[in-house]
Amino acid sequence: MTRPFLAKDLTAIILAAGGGSRMKSQTPKPLHKVCGKEILNMILDAVELSGIEYSVTIVPSDYKLFEISVGNRTRFEVQGQAKGTGHALLQAKKAAKNSQFILVLNGDIPLISPETISQLISLHQEKESTATFLTNRKDNPLGSGRVIRTHKGAVEAIVEERDADSEIKDVTEVNCGVYCFEAPWVWSALESLKPSSTNEFYITDLIALALEQNLRVETLETDRQEETINVNDRIQLAEAEALLQQNIRAKWMKSGVTLVDPTSIYIEQGVDIGEDTSILPNTHIQQGSTIGRNCQIGPDTTVKASAIGDKSKVTHSVIENASLGTKVSVGPFSRIRAGTVLENNVYVGNHAEIKNSTLGSESKCGHFSYIGDAIIGTNVNLGAGTITCNYDGVTKLKTVIGNNAFIGSNTMLVAPVNVGENAVTGTGSIVNKNVPDGARAIGAPVRIIQGGRS
Amino acid sequence: MTRPFLAKDLTAIILAAGGGSRMKSQTPKPLHKVCGKEILNMILDAVELSGIEYSVTIVPSDYKLFEISVGNRTRFEVQGQAKGTGHALLQAKKAAKNSQFILVLNGDIPLISPETISQLISLHQEKESTATFLTNRKDNPLGSGRVIRTHKGAVEAIVEERDADSEIKDVTEVNCGVYCFEAPWVWSALESLKPSSTNEFYITDLIALALEQNLRVETLETDRQEETINVNDRIQLAEAEALLQQNIRAKWMKSGVTLVDPTSIYIEQGVDIGEDTSILPNTHIQQGSTIGRNCQIGPDTTVKASAIGDKSKVTHSVIENASLGTKVSVGPFSRIRAGTVLENNVYVGNHAEIKNSTLGSESKCGHFSYIGDAIIGTNVNLGAGTITCNYDGVTKLKTVIGNNAFIGSNTMLVAPVNVGENAVTGTGSIVNKNVPDGARAIGAPVRIIQGGRS
Amino acid sequence: MTRPFLAKDLTAIILAAGGGSRMKSQTPKPLHKVCGKEILNMILDAVELSGIEYSVTIVPSDYKLFEISVGNRTRFEVQGQAKGTGHALLQAKKAAKNSQFILVLNGDIPLISPETISQLISLHQEKESTATFLTNRKDNPLGSGRVIRTHKGAVEAIVEERDADSEIKDVTEVNCGVYCFEAPWVWSALESLKPSSTNEFYITDLIALALEQNLRVETLETDRQEETINVNDRIQLAEAEALLQQNIRAKWMKSGVTLVDPTSIYIEQGVDIGEDTSILPNTHIQQGSTIGRNCQIGPDTTVKASAIGDKSKVTHSVIENASLGTKVSVGPFSRIRAGTVLENNVYVGNHAEIKNSTLGSESKCGHFSYIGDAIIGTNVNLGAGTITCNYDGVTKLKTVIGNNAFIGSNTMLVAPVNVGENAVTGTGSIVNKNVPDGARAIGAPVRIIQGGRS
Repeated sequence: MTRPFLAKDLTAIILAAGGGSRMKSQTPKPLHKVCGKEILNMILDAVELSGIEYSVTIVPSDYKLFEISVGNRTRFEVQGQAKGTGHALLQAKKAAKNSQFILVLNGDIPLISPETISQLISLHQEKESTATFLTNRKDNPLGSGRVIRTHKGAVEAIVEERDADSEIKDVTEVNCGVYCFEAPWVWSALESLKPSSTNEFYITDLIALALEQNLRVETLETDRQEETINVNDRIQLAEAEALLQQNIRAKWMKSGVTLVDPTSIYIEQGVDIGEDTSILPNTHIQQGSTIGRNCQIGPDTTVKASAIGDKSKVTHSVIENASLGTKVSVGPFSRIRAGTVLENNVYVGNHAEIKNSTLGSESKCGHFSYIGDAIIGTNVNLGAGTITCNYDGVTKLKTVIGNNAFIGSNTMLVAPVNVGENAVTGTGSIVNKNVPDGARAIGAPVRIIQGGRS
Repeated sequence: MTRPFLAKDLTAIILAAGGGSRMKSQTPKPLHKVCGKEILNMILDAVELSGIEYSVTIVPSDYKLFEISVGNRTRFEVQGQAKGTGHALLQAKKAAKNSQFILVLNGDIPLISPETISQLISLHQEKESTATFLTNRKDNPLGSGRVIRTHKGAVEAIVEERDADSEIKDVTEVNCGVYCFEAPWVWSALESLKPSSTNEFYITDLIALALEQNLRVETLETDRQEETINVNDRIQLAEAEALLQQNIRAKWMKSGVTLVDPTSIYIEQGVDIGEDTSILPNTHIQQGSTIGRNCQIGPDTTVKASAIGDKSKVTHSVIENASLGTKVSVGPFSRIRAGTVLENNVYVGNHAEIKNSTLGSESKCGHFSYIGDAIIGTNVNLGAGTITCNYDGVTKLKTVIGNNAFIGSNTMLVAPVNVGENAVTGTGSIVNKNVPDGARAIGAPVRIIQGGRS
Repeated sequence: MTRPFLAKDLTAIILAAGGGSRMKSQTPKPLHKVCGKEILNMILDAVELSGIEYSVTIVPSDYKLFEISVGNRTRFEVQGQAKGTGHALLQAKKAAKNSQFILVLNGDIPLISPETISQLISLHQEKESTATFLTNRKDNPLGSGRVIRTHKGAVEAIVEERDADSEIKDVTEVNCGVYCFEAPWVWSALESLKPSSTNEFYITDLIALALEQNLRVETLETDRQEETINVNDRIQLAEAEALLQQNIRAKWMKSGVTLVDPTSIYIEQGVDIGEDTSILPNTHIQQGSTIGRNCQIGPDTTVKASAIGDKSKVTHSVIENASLGTKVSVGPFSRIRAGTVLENNVYVGNHAEIKNSTLGSESKCGHFSYIGDAIIGTNVNLGAGTITCNYDGVTKLKTVIGNNAFIGSNTMLVAPVNVGENAVTGTGSIVNKNVPDGARAIGAPVRIIQGGRS
């Protein structure tokens, strides 16, 4: 990686004010998500990873949703009217006034990489160009601006689809919408641009202007087609997601994770998965998840923002904001919710819901049960149909169960309530008072019998 | 669309009597389904949408299954013996006797479009042809009849695979099995056809005959390969379904619906989905479903013949013949069955089954429960393990619960029973008598305590 | 198939000692699974099906995992040092000393077929070659040894990627790592091989040696690319699985099974599926399963080592080591576990778990329930929330229910316990003593009322 680009060196400017009408959406196009992350945040990731410290994002007048999604990663500048990319860029003039170079990125290229950004900037600086832009050869260039070159290969023009004759339409090298400019030149050039027939100003006309002025224009051709996919509608959004998923899956397979039918496995960025873990079909591993080694996750499982220890197994279940130790088994058809900790060797079978609770190591919850707001010790057996009655209509209340307790089937634990170590509750008991260590609690409501467990 | 074709103008004849032995099935080939609809019904849809009012379907002797699937959309005529397509067509002579034109369609082309049918008929009428048929260029023409042309491009013959030499096998233009004929000519021509060595009569020989008679034969070449896929085995059945699904998905993405991993989302025809709704992987949206805007449906969800209001969320669940209001949340692992109405802001969590019941707005059924044949007011809380005991072994019985009631965990509601407004039932209570408004019902069986809820 | 190859004729030698470092795994590469079966077992299947009775597998020093996975299907010989394929082969000399021919297979080609093996041996014998090897043309030959030929087409050499110049890299015919050798020659030739610069010995040098000695070297070119895929990393592992799945799916579709979205259906080898059964998306049919005719299995279903009778329907469920009769219905969200028998016409609805139990014909378990270690008669109705309390913390205990019994909702069956024929249990009853035929059992714990059911 090149040295960091400070604000005085370079400002990245992301053009995110465009309407995106083909998305047919109330959500601005740059805030649609690819693999769980907004397009704009993906571009900002690439910008930051390429070493650029300062960015400006051009947004429409109402940019509340941008602030919510992006926070203060970037400075927002408003383009009040839809007057073209050149006009959009001009809105950054003040914010970028101290920079020597500017990097411009269209706000619809979610897969652009930091490496390509760095290469473009390096080339620009090395060649001392006035303008440098990224190009790519497309099998189907339809809709993109074509790069026209002289016989010697120098750039002659960028011609938009609408202005292209049939010969130009056959050109496969296209403009990707990523530019590096010499800053002083670009700001004055932008002000001298002539509007189009629809009174819009285009960045591509800056290239024409530089050429007219006999200034140096360079291009960087990338062969990574996927980096330059631009998202104009939801079909392209799905394509971008498919390409990114393909890369993410390949990365994990290469690092020693088995994916059975990779195309049905959805792995977001920002996760970690250990060697020799197998992920089975139709499984989602979402941001903030850490999965250990030798695990089996799936099929039909969602793991979101959760930690799972080595040698654990989760099938047909949903795990959210939870922490599972080693050799934990969950599923099928169970739901482990926020704030849950399942310690080592915990077994959760089918149709269980566990919320904001801790199950100590070796404890078992084999069959349909609802455990909420509970602290459960080690080696506890929770019978089928156990329910923590943790809600009185107003407050969520605590249940505490000691080590080695045996909770009979269909026990109602009316919180707040404590069940002691080695205590036993009877089948169908309604436990509305504390059960001392080693006692038996039987009936509805319960009677306490001391020393019940042999 | 052209003007409607009345019975006196044109009869569509669908050849659906063929054995379809490669399907290896007890179900006749035209009754196998593509995206939930029988091939024959798909062809009849296209015929009707192209403006044709009258159709005859040639069926085998035992056509009970055809009647069940197709009803009276078409007139059935029986081909008693498997003597070829020409013999099949002849069985429609009487039924089509008043028509000036006939349109013939093989009963194995599920994706034929009304537009192509209309174009074929228009071309036939415009050119005043004796016969006009649809052709298509196939990358792999193996198995199809090849269209042989003169140097000037006129049709010379259709040669079936079995009669083709290696030069003819290289021809990529194939006969798609959709024909338009001048009616008087075709009926007499059919009777003059010579049988094949296996004593069968072929429609393709009609083309040869017309050419011999120096009558006009036209072709319409379509470039929409998918329209002309013919289904002879279950691999082709799967291919037809994949092609149709691809079109349906593209349509919804273009209209503003996000599909995450579109290839894993199964959308039947006859549904509606609002803008900015996201559908997550492994989700089925089936016929008769209407999904509002800004919903999130899936992953792992089936919605069948149900209405879902705006901003609702359904995950890992099955919804059948139900109606959900706005901002309803269901799942994971819940099942909403026929006759259920979930009003606005209802929350159904995990492992719930709700059948033939109404839950008023703001009501909650968070955890495993069975609610059947119940009318539940607004803002009711149903505790974990609530069961409507709606079946006495003979009859299904009603449960009615008033607004703001609080149903404790593991309450058994022994129907028929009413629980009043603001009433409370205790944990583990067996409610076998009515509970007045504002009362508490405790125990098994319950005692009623007036004014129980503070 | 050719006649069987006895040990004295031919020994198959599988080279399975390689490190497989690109798998990044604690599991040796040949023991990674494709469609549920270890690569080595797949190769041994092909070897055995081609009629070869005797095989030797070259393994690393620590081959415990090989023994566990492969058992005594093959004789193990250890290669103590990683000194190349030639050195590996030499370790089999003693074990194969009586054979006239040897067949050598790299241990990373899971999809090699018995037919191709047989053809290679036949060709070798027919031509009386010294060495015969399998070749294949690859679109992307990168990484494979290229087969260099004279103008007349005779083999000249095998050149490994690392030794290939750019001209040789353009050669698309590659060595597949399957060889047949004349045994006496190969053993002496191996001992005369010269080591590489890294002190390794290569089988490919045997080919060079035979050519130098003017001995006959033949090749068999196969056009079945999928057979020769070799698995070096988990991406190739996934590709091999995808190819095998594709073949398996095609086989079942051709035999009369409808697969809706075949790419999402996972069928292992060693299963049987009847005609006119439909399998819906995201469904797994695993080894040892037998599914009848006219069934509907899926979506979102796993069937493992289970038998399912005709006309049964299973949706969104997991069936393991169980037996289902005809017209059985299960799901959604149910789990049928080992040792369960569901007789004809049994209905299991949602959120049920049934383990090691028999449900007699016509019995129903419609809603959330846990049935374990129970024998249940015919026409029994199990109410919602029924639980067999089959575990006292020490032992699993039996529940027996007679024909036509009616088990009320939320009944706890405290095993060991018998409920007689035509008996009824009340809602919420705790059945801790036997219920005679025709009696009613009410309360917690139950009182018995004779002749209760009208």
